[in-house]
Amino acid sequence: MTSNMEKPYVVGIDIGGTNTVFGIVDARGTILASDSIKTQIHATADKYVDAVCERLLPLIQSQGGIEKIKGIGVGAPNGNYYSGTIEFAPNLPWKGVISLAAMFEERLSIPTVLTNDANAAAIGEMTYGAARGMKDFIMITLGTGVGSGIVINGQLVYGHDGFAGELGHVVVRRENGRMCGCGRKGCLEAYCSATGVARTAREMLQANSDASLLRDIPAESIMSKDVYDAAVKGDKLAREIFNFTGEILGEALADFIAFSSPEAIILFGGLAKSGDYIMNPLKKALDENILNIFKGKAKILISELKDSDAAVLGASALAWEIKDLS
Amino acid sequence: MTSNMEKPYVVGIDIGGTNTVFGIVDARGTILASDSIKTQIHATADKYVDAVCERLLPLIQSQGGIEKIKGIGVGAPNGNYYSGTIEFAPNLPWKGVISLAAMFEERLSIPTVLTNDANAAAIGEMTYGAARGMKDFIMITLGTGVGSGIVINGQLVYGHDGFAGELGHVVVRRENGRMCGCGRKGCLEAYCSATGVARTAREMLQANSDASLLRDIPAESIMSKDVYDAAVKGDKLAREIFNFTGEILGEALADFIAFSSPEAIILFGGLAKSGDYIMNPLKKALDENILNIFKGKAKILISELKDSDAAVLGASALAWEIKDLS
Repeated sequence: MTSNMEKPYVVGIDIGGTNTVFGIVDARGTILASDSIKTQIHATADKYVDAVCERLLPLIQSQGGIEKIKGIGVGAPNGNYYSGTIEFAPNLPWKGVISLAAMFEERLSIPTVLTNDANAAAIGEMTYGAARGMKDFIMITLGTGVGSGIVINGQLVYGHDGFAGELGHVVVRRENGRMCGCGRKGCLEAYCSATGVARTAREMLQANSDASLLRDIPAESIMSKDVYDAAVKGDKLAREIFNFTGEILGEALADFIAFSSPEAIILFGGLAKSGDYIMNPLKKALDENILNIFKGKAKILISELKDSDAAVLGASALAWEIKDLS
Repeated sequence: MTSNMEKPYVVGIDIGGTNTVFGIVDARGTILASDSIKTQIHATADKYVDAVCERLLPLIQSQGGIEKIKGIGVGAPNGNYYSGTIEFAPNLPWKGVISLAAMFEERLSIPTVLTNDANAAAIGEMTYGAARGMKDFIMITLGTGVGSGIVINGQLVYGHDGFAGELGHVVVRRENGRMCGCGRKGCLEAYCSATGVARTAREMLQANSDASLLRDIPAESIMSKDVYDAAVKGDKLAREIFNFTGEILGEALADFIAFSSPEAIILFGGLAKSGDYIMNPLKKALDENILNIFKGKAKILISELKDSDAAVLGASALAWEIKDLS
């Protein structure tokens, strides 16, 4: 068996719709070297993997070569842990089922595992962040969409098919629910993602004519960051937007807790950093909606990983979990 | 280590609000001997445990004595696996936290584990029933209430505090939700339990004046079994009641699948035995509400355990999971 002493590093690769970021990471979660390429410009997955490897290999060499690397972890949209494939990812240019983990293993002869980005974030938080030492927690990523990674008994929940943990697509509004990108109505993601917050802003601005700093921005250009900036300046409507969003998220978290009764729920992403504006209504709604036996038990925490590092760290953390076969 | 050859039997004890049923069970799920006592007539938990043991010991002796018993499994309302306690069970006469597992161990010197009844049902189904060989499934018990037991990676989900899996109290109607026994509004249990079905019947009978066989029964006496009997006779309103109930259950199951992506959902209890009346609207709603990547994957199954045996078998199955310490 090879120990971490002999292979002290892992590689994390985060595949985003725009950029692919990768880095060499040590056991403490320090990114020793990193680089990135554009994801979309490569016509085939083969050419894309070639391009990543071309830029990744010099980083690996700079840290002592392939023999120092325990494994590669990949975080990718629609990533399937069991098969190491990405399947019908709507935001990536390569269609169908792509055996991405095998393609990296072939080129680099390093064991490679892959999962979706929210699952990678959960493992990252468990390895280097706010969930260190926890065996039961739920990670919620609040970005362009809403993703989740669920850890139970110290293990990530992949489910029967490898796709478990789609909490962004739990229905939170059965009646008159907003259309979601998934084609269904009323999903959590349609309200609590960055795009959901911007949509709430547009709806509220239209629903009344109260003064708001947000009226200075063309409605279609409003971003969730603008709502935060306005809230900081005391804008009443901006705070109402956070109240509305936090309430829906708090209600949803109460249901998630009824499922797996986690020690903590960890929030990641822009919305999570909106401080009390989001946390106060969230905690109030959670407290009002939670089943009695769970009241006051689960902690609501904010990710401890730096935004710029989190994706690479999360992906890299997966590689520590690879079982030695030798 | 003692093998199952030496200790070939387990004991299952199911504590219900009315009766406590117990039996000796072999590895194939045959109940070799069983008996029962009334739960409520014992003023203290100590006297109650004494009474169970007094009737249980002769059964154990008849099968070769204590040395043949690997362990005791107890299914109890509000049972906590980690602590072996029942905590503030509303339908039991003994208040507060009761160390029930320890009390049985003390008297019988047999390792004893305890969990809530729906969790016991899940373990029973995995050991002897429809979930044999499955590592990821969700058990839903549709009785007076709605309970659940969730199995992920072959392990029951107990959560951080031992109370995970309260899917009967996930909110399925946020607006104008029915009052639930838990004090909250819109819970799945308020619609899809036997009492929920009876309530739907009363509401629908009041909402219109269409002819129905159910009008022959005094409204307050209608039971879910009456609705089934009427549906079998072709009663239109009775079928509408099942459609309404099945639709809500199907919507809820779609969300549960987004959480843990199970191989199957197994339904147990009276409502589950209502055949196509409940299954057709349930499967239709599930199909219409499920996220695309999960479509058609999870099987919806009916428990394979006989009603009269299921509680004892479920509790007994827990005892097979006890780790040998010797």
